[in-house]
Amino acid sequence: MTDKDTPLPILVVHGPNLNMLGQREPDIYGHDTLDTITARMTTVARDCGLALSSFQSNHEGELVDCIQSHMGKARGVIINPAALTHTSIALRDALCALEVPIVEIHLSNIYKREPFRHRSLIADIAVGQISGFGSHGYILAVLAMGERLHPSTPA
Amino acid sequence: MTDKDTPLPILVVHGPNLNMLGQREPDIYGHDTLDTITARMTTVARDCGLALSSFQSNHEGELVDCIQSHMGKARGVIINPAALTHTSIALRDALCALEVPIVEIHLSNIYKREPFRHRSLIADIAVGQISGFGSHGYILAVLAMGERLHPSTPA
Amino acid sequence: MTDKDTPLPILVVHGPNLNMLGQREPDIYGHDTLDTITARMTTVARDCGLALSSFQSNHEGELVDCIQSHMGKARGVIINPAALTHTSIALRDALCALEVPIVEIHLSNIYKREPFRHRSLIADIAVGQISGFGSHGYILAVLAMGERLHPSTPA
Amino acid sequence: MTDKDTPLPILVVHGPNLNMLGQREPDIYGHDTLDTITARMTTVARDCGLALSSFQSNHEGELVDCIQSHMGKARGVIINPAALTHTSIALRDALCALEVPIVEIHLSNIYKREPFRHRSLIADIAVGQISGFGSHGYILAVLAMGERLHPSTPA
Amino acid sequence: MTDKDTPLPILVVHGPNLNMLGQREPDIYGHDTLDTITARMTTVARDCGLALSSFQSNHEGELVDCIQSHMGKARGVIINPAALTHTSIALRDALCALEVPIVEIHLSNIYKREPFRHRSLIADIAVGQISGFGSHGYILAVLAMGERLHPSTPA
Amino acid sequence: MTDKDTPLPILVVHGPNLNMLGQREPDIYGHDTLDTITARMTTVARDCGLALSSFQSNHEGELVDCIQSHMGKARGVIINPAALTHTSIALRDALCALEVPIVEIHLSNIYKREPFRHRSLIADIAVGQISGFGSHGYILAVLAMGERLHPSTPA
Amino acid sequence: MTDKDTPLPILVVHGPNLNMLGQREPDIYGHDTLDTITARMTTVARDCGLALSSFQSNHEGELVDCIQSHMGKARGVIINPAALTHTSIALRDALCALEVPIVEIHLSNIYKREPFRHRSLIADIAVGQISGFGSHGYILAVLAMGERLHPSTPA
Amino acid sequence: MTDKDTPLPILVVHGPNLNMLGQREPDIYGHDTLDTITARMTTVARDCGLALSSFQSNHEGELVDCIQSHMGKARGVIINPAALTHTSIALRDALCALEVPIVEIHLSNIYKREPFRHRSLIADIAVGQISGFGSHGYILAVLAMGERLHPSTPA
Amino acid sequence: MTDKDTPLPILVVHGPNLNMLGQREPDIYGHDTLDTITARMTTVARDCGLALSSFQSNHEGELVDCIQSHMGKARGVIINPAALTHTSIALRDALCALEVPIVEIHLSNIYKREPFRHRSLIADIAVGQISGFGSHGYILAVLAMGERLHPSTPA
Amino acid sequence: MTDKDTPLPILVVHGPNLNMLGQREPDIYGHDTLDTITARMTTVARDCGLALSSFQSNHEGELVDCIQSHMGKARGVIINPAALTHTSIALRDALCALEVPIVEIHLSNIYKREPFRHRSLIADIAVGQISGFGSHGYILAVLAMGERLHPSTPA
Amino acid sequence: MTDKDTPLPILVVHGPNLNMLGQREPDIYGHDTLDTITARMTTVARDCGLALSSFQSNHEGELVDCIQSHMGKARGVIINPAALTHTSIALRDALCALEVPIVEIHLSNIYKREPFRHRSLIADIAVGQISGFGSHGYILAVLAMGERLHPSTPA
Amino acid sequence: MTDKDTPLPILVVHGPNLNMLGQREPDIYGHDTLDTITARMTTVARDCGLALSSFQSNHEGELVDCIQSHMGKARGVIINPAALTHTSIALRDALCALEVPIVEIHLSNIYKREPFRHRSLIADIAVGQISGFGSHGYILAVLAMGERLHPSTPA
Repeated sequence: MTDKDTPLPILVVHGPNLNMLGQREPDIYGHDTLDTITARMTTVARDCGLALSSFQSNHEGELVDCIQSHMGKARGVIINPAALTHTSIALRDALCALEVPIVEIHLSNIYKREPFRHRSLIADIAVGQISGFGSHGYILAVLAMGERLHPSTPA
Repeated sequence: MTDKDTPLPILVVHGPNLNMLGQREPDIYGHDTLDTITARMTTVARDCGLALSSFQSNHEGELVDCIQSHMGKARGVIINPAALTHTSIALRDALCALEVPIVEIHLSNIYKREPFRHRSLIADIAVGQISGFGSHGYILAVLAMGERLHPSTPA
Repeated sequence: MTDKDTPLPILVVHGPNLNMLGQREPDIYGHDTLDTITARMTTVARDCGLALSSFQSNHEGELVDCIQSHMGKARGVIINPAALTHTSIALRDALCALEVPIVEIHLSNIYKREPFRHRSLIADIAVGQISGFGSHGYILAVLAMGERLHPSTPA
Repeated sequence: MTDKDTPLPILVVHGPNLNMLGQREPDIYGHDTLDTITARMTTVARDCGLALSSFQSNHEGELVDCIQSHMGKARGVIINPAALTHTSIALRDALCALEVPIVEIHLSNIYKREPFRHRSLIADIAVGQISGFGSHGYILAVLAMGERLHPSTPA
Repeated sequence: MTDKDTPLPILVVHGPNLNMLGQREPDIYGHDTLDTITARMTTVARDCGLALSSFQSNHEGELVDCIQSHMGKARGVIINPAALTHTSIALRDALCALEVPIVEIHLSNIYKREPFRHRSLIADIAVGQISGFGSHGYILAVLAMGERLHPSTPA
Repeated sequence: MTDKDTPLPILVVHGPNLNMLGQREPDIYGHDTLDTITARMTTVARDCGLALSSFQSNHEGELVDCIQSHMGKARGVIINPAALTHTSIALRDALCALEVPIVEIHLSNIYKREPFRHRSLIADIAVGQISGFGSHGYILAVLAMGERLHPSTPA
Repeated sequence: MTDKDTPLPILVVHGPNLNMLGQREPDIYGHDTLDTITARMTTVARDCGLALSSFQSNHEGELVDCIQSHMGKARGVIINPAALTHTSIALRDALCALEVPIVEIHLSNIYKREPFRHRSLIADIAVGQISGFGSHGYILAVLAMGERLHPSTPA
Repeated sequence: MTDKDTPLPILVVHGPNLNMLGQREPDIYGHDTLDTITARMTTVARDCGLALSSFQSNHEGELVDCIQSHMGKARGVIINPAALTHTSIALRDALCALEVPIVEIHLSNIYKREPFRHRSLIADIAVGQISGFGSHGYILAVLAMGERLHPSTPA
Repeated sequence: MTDKDTPLPILVVHGPNLNMLGQREPDIYGHDTLDTITARMTTVARDCGLALSSFQSNHEGELVDCIQSHMGKARGVIINPAALTHTSIALRDALCALEVPIVEIHLSNIYKREPFRHRSLIADIAVGQISGFGSHGYILAVLAMGERLHPSTPA
Repeated sequence: MTDKDTPLPILVVHGPNLNMLGQREPDIYGHDTLDTITARMTTVARDCGLALSSFQSNHEGELVDCIQSHMGKARGVIINPAALTHTSIALRDALCALEVPIVEIHLSNIYKREPFRHRSLIADIAVGQISGFGSHGYILAVLAMGERLHPSTPA
Repeated sequence: MTDKDTPLPILVVHGPNLNMLGQREPDIYGHDTLDTITARMTTVARDCGLALSSFQSNHEGELVDCIQSHMGKARGVIINPAALTHTSIALRDALCALEVPIVEIHLSNIYKREPFRHRSLIADIAVGQISGFGSHGYILAVLAMGERLHPSTPA
Repeated sequence: MTDKDTPLPILVVHGPNLNMLGQREPDIYGHDTLDTITARMTTVARDCGLALSSFQSNHEGELVDCIQSHMGKARGVIINPAALTHTSIALRDALCALEVPIVEIHLSNIYKREPFRHRSLIADIAVGQISGFGSHGYILAVLAMGERLHPSTPA
């Protein structure tokens, strides 16, 4: 039913402060900027039959607007909600309304950090969660989405 | 002291994702859009001596701005804070500052849903709460506000 | 399917101490007696195509008996369980067995009161809850029940 | 010391809403009425050297009265406290005063239901508890009481 | 303002299972029956300018009825709510409505018993609480009420 | 559909330390050994149309292995998980995989013991639970399983 | 066994800040000073066959020293531990070592105050507790101790 | 190392609803507007060798944007996060990324208010916290920042 | 109403272990001794129209004695309760009895330390709290007290 | 430092009940057996410069033995601890002792399941966690480990 | 009654991962192997009139088997349950059945480690606990056992 | 580096009520007085190269004073904080300031007693803890301290 020749549109969403990647605490978050990561994801996505469209904002409301505007268009969402992972029910509700598979990704291992980062309000509506692998986790997220939407793909 | 011939201005506030009504999970939230609901509320409000002014946003900050801008103008607020019901102290603080009666309304019965939706940060500063009657709950909210501001009104 | 010309029978249940309305702490609970409230509800109910039958008791067991005796007869229940809201699983079980819509009503805003009044054992089996509007809340409850059972009724 | 020829008197107590058995939610509670169950229990009890006397009420107070009136008469109590399992310290106190073995029985598996049904105020003063075997659980309760009072009985 | 020659009417309320005093677990609750205790209280009350009227029931509803019927008549309430101490909000609400001083009394020291007996729903609306002095506690309760209503009385 | 002439195979599982029955704290656990209990169960099982196969181990892993090896063979499981009742999710998962009725049995009344023994990780996946009737509880468990699998069986 | 002619020695202990009685927040704590209260207690005690010895300190250590020094001498302790009620295990340990009856008394109703005043570390080692009757509570405490040590005393 | 002649740039951040200062509940928050406060802070800052730049928004996203834009520029942040103190991990993350000293300031004493205002998500990443001194607290915050950055300054 | 020429008497209280300042863990608590700090505070206080009187003790009882002895004399209290912040209700009660403004100060940021140091039993009865600014915090506390008692003072 | 030509040895550990994959609840866990999964992992691992060695057991002790035996040999561990995720501190201790990177993988999204599966005792000692992607998650785990050990590998 | 010439048999039990002593994290657990420790303990034990028999396993079941097999033989148990300290009720039950004195020993101070290591399921059935003294703690444990079984031994 | 010929000075601290040893509840605490125990400890200490100096007080403040006065003198502290174990942060802070090894000792097994005795505020700053071995535990504590300060000592 799916066809890799016509790649499926996927929304990639980055939450607050991720625009600072590469500048902010590089020994924790690494030296890659969001642009570098997006470029790498795009290449891998193409091989998986996916076409990515990325968006970052520090505003919860803009993130909700963006997700709503992809309703009926995006076939999946890869999201790193950053700080909003733990506090935004609005983001959760917007994601639910799309009714497409969601892959949750975190750069750091959130279970090693402060207790208030241990609970995700997104985890139980996502297909799955990848956390702790740094920027490489984004590549794994693309692969996971590819497998989900083109399940006959050999890994 | 109040006079139905000069209807009292009431602010109606809708929180995140409510702009999607009618499109999003219609078997849960029904087929009515926000425009349809607003039209029905306006008719009933007129009979109750109220003049409604409605606002929806997915941005917590815009909702706070809007509420502040009605200070000294609106005589009451009907609010469905949606996802922000459970997380926004900023909304609560803005509502408190108005010092007018607040009616809280929810489409679904929030007590039947996930535990994180059981606590409202608005409930204890509101006159009362209506939840679980779908879009009809908005009509009930207008009637409740009418009774509150024109208490001699026959129900 | 429903017909306003043959009003639907509705049970109205009042829990402990509500027989004291009008006498007990009038600045909190108002000056209306239960008889006055019942008269007003009856008038509004008639316009909604409902025929009310009211019952008050200070005995949990009598309330359960009464609810059971309306099985297969009442088409809905409007209940103010008063103090039993927070402690009676027996009342909850009896209401469940009826399998008709339930509207929960409280005179005061229970979320503004002592913590042991914040949890309702009825709320999640009710269609919805109305609290904090004083005796006018009973009128809202009748309207809500009317809308539920005659959904094409213009509000 | 005990003698099956003179059967020992046993009180069987049924709490609120159990008079509705067979009528109420039969796919959960089964089609057996309380009369049918009592008849079956009586037959089995006879074989176990027990003479049953049954009582049901929706009133906590009547249940307490009944238990008190069997003081010094009943040699054991089989009780399904239903909703009062979780809330009635009065029932617990009345049972304690009898100073005879108590067998607690529930039709449904209370550990599969809502959290407020997981704690029994009777369990730690009972010999034991049987839950989840439907109306057959009452037969098991009679057998358990028989074994307790006539311990040399072959099972 | 008060006058010992016309003794003030006081309601004495006994909750569930207290009718069994003297029969039930005498090594815990003592050998005094409720009649003996009432007789002693009456004598002491007379000296304090109080006229007692006593009531016991195993039914929460009857206790609420009784308290309501003394509204505007009794000038104080001495109550041992027994098991209902910990579970009855209905009793609490009925007592509040009287708007007279309440003295709470327990035979045993409730803080030495099971955890579910440590919380009293009456304690914070009472003048004070006396617990753990056995039947003599009732005499102390009469003295406390006398001092409260005739404050110039030398102890 | 079931036929008592070909008895249904049932697995009986005993958790850690139950091999010590009869030797260990006999005033708590009784003088019966596991062999005696098994013999009695076998006799009763035959009358119920069941064929028992028993297994005891102190090793969680061996218990899991054993349960797995009966997949597609046993038609029901009677289990006393002993100390593992409260700690072993592995046992729970193995039992779930069998997809047959499970009857949980405890010698002592676990609700009278230490708090860490009050929660069962098995209870909500079992048909029901029997606890507190000593070794006779095993006979009740066999009868409960018989009734479940041959429901027309007269008790 | 006891003889009122030789009064029994009783230690009366007052915790921190009680030396300020009469000066500190008189609308809460009343106008009586500790000296006035002690005088009244002494008179009543004499009638009860008790001889009081009083001690107040703001120092936990001095209170412990004092209690220890009465070991084998005092036949009972009446104590208002004030703020130490809720925090001092040392006081509790010292009181336990005396092995005499303890009566706990509080001027105010501690259950009406801040949550950190609701738990007493003394309550479960005391005969009983009296709270909320102001300085008259001390008289009740003397009577309670009298009854305890001379149980045949008519109240 | 630092030199008062070239004042150090400091960012002053005000969270939601603080634009209403002087208008909103003046008996709680005082009559000073944000402009008045800013003017006073500027004067004191100059004496401390600091140059302030202030920003207020009701939008969490705008506050995060603003903080990010001062990365590598501001040498310290004085922040009154208002309602976001208790809910915004995004604000916390943005502040952390700056890697400069943070002084947290609240107009009211947050420990006297509702429990949900007792926990600050900023406190443990700040140098220190000042709360409860009204608008004068802002002056204290400037002095604290001055001392921190020019530690040899005589207070 | 206040007059700087006659400075107002202020009590400065230091709790346990603060006598070790300068000697104990200097990299945490700094090199200033209590004498140095007191000298600096005195100078600043004079400019604010305040006259300080300081007291340190490791004994809770002595601190309570000291506070009581300033009743009706001190016009304000600046207190660093140190370890007693979290455990002493006696200190709280003594401070309440003074009925003067209290300023709470901590050298370290208590919200960065062990959880048992996060709750202050003093915070909700103080005007405000200053924590985390080292010995400079004492200067800020004097300024805060000065502003409170001489509110027209230019900061 | 690492060299893909000599693949690095990696231990793959499967906890209790995973030997049943493909047989047990296939609509939840899928139709792949452990052998199929291992074969696929091996192929992908080779491309990543890793050499896998797999082990499954239902015995916690055997899993600990196995992990210990790879000390100083394995360069990383990929583990699906299954039910032991939530209960085994022994497994955690054994993994810690290896001092190599650990990747935690779960077939199902553990955050969508029962609460006792939400806490992992392994998560905070792992590099990261992958859950909810079914058997494909194992491929992602291999890729994550490859990236970790050969970080210059193009994804 | 005891006689040092015939040493008493004592079982020494070591839980999971302790076979790795000397190899695993030596800066935490030291360089001593289990063999070295056993040798030292044996020497000291001889002087105390004790004969040790040691056993280590990573399998909970084997530890339970071993303890059971010493029933009626060992006169005491010295146990370091390692990770099972916090999770194994089976081990606790097996130890209880022996009915001999138990000494609990930990190499590290468990109260300085992760919260899940703070609760011991063994502590309340042991004579006492020794933790935090490294391998020397085993010697102290032997001395404690010696004193317990030969109480007249001069220390 | 250490030399047994010049014994190292060690402070031994005993908390409230320990002066009553031998008199208070001897079947719990034994017949040894503090003097006897001190004598025995002194003898053993001499063999370990330690010189003890003992102090007991019922006053928290005196204990803190004493500990402070040994700063820079004592090389270790052996402490039985008794009731203060669970409540005194002041004691903890004083001990921390010494920066020498601390050995915590309890006569009874605190984990077998009331829940409020299960948490030690000292345990995580001590080298280790010994509890439950009666007065012999003090000898073990001396041995543990000896080993710690003269680690080459043969046990």
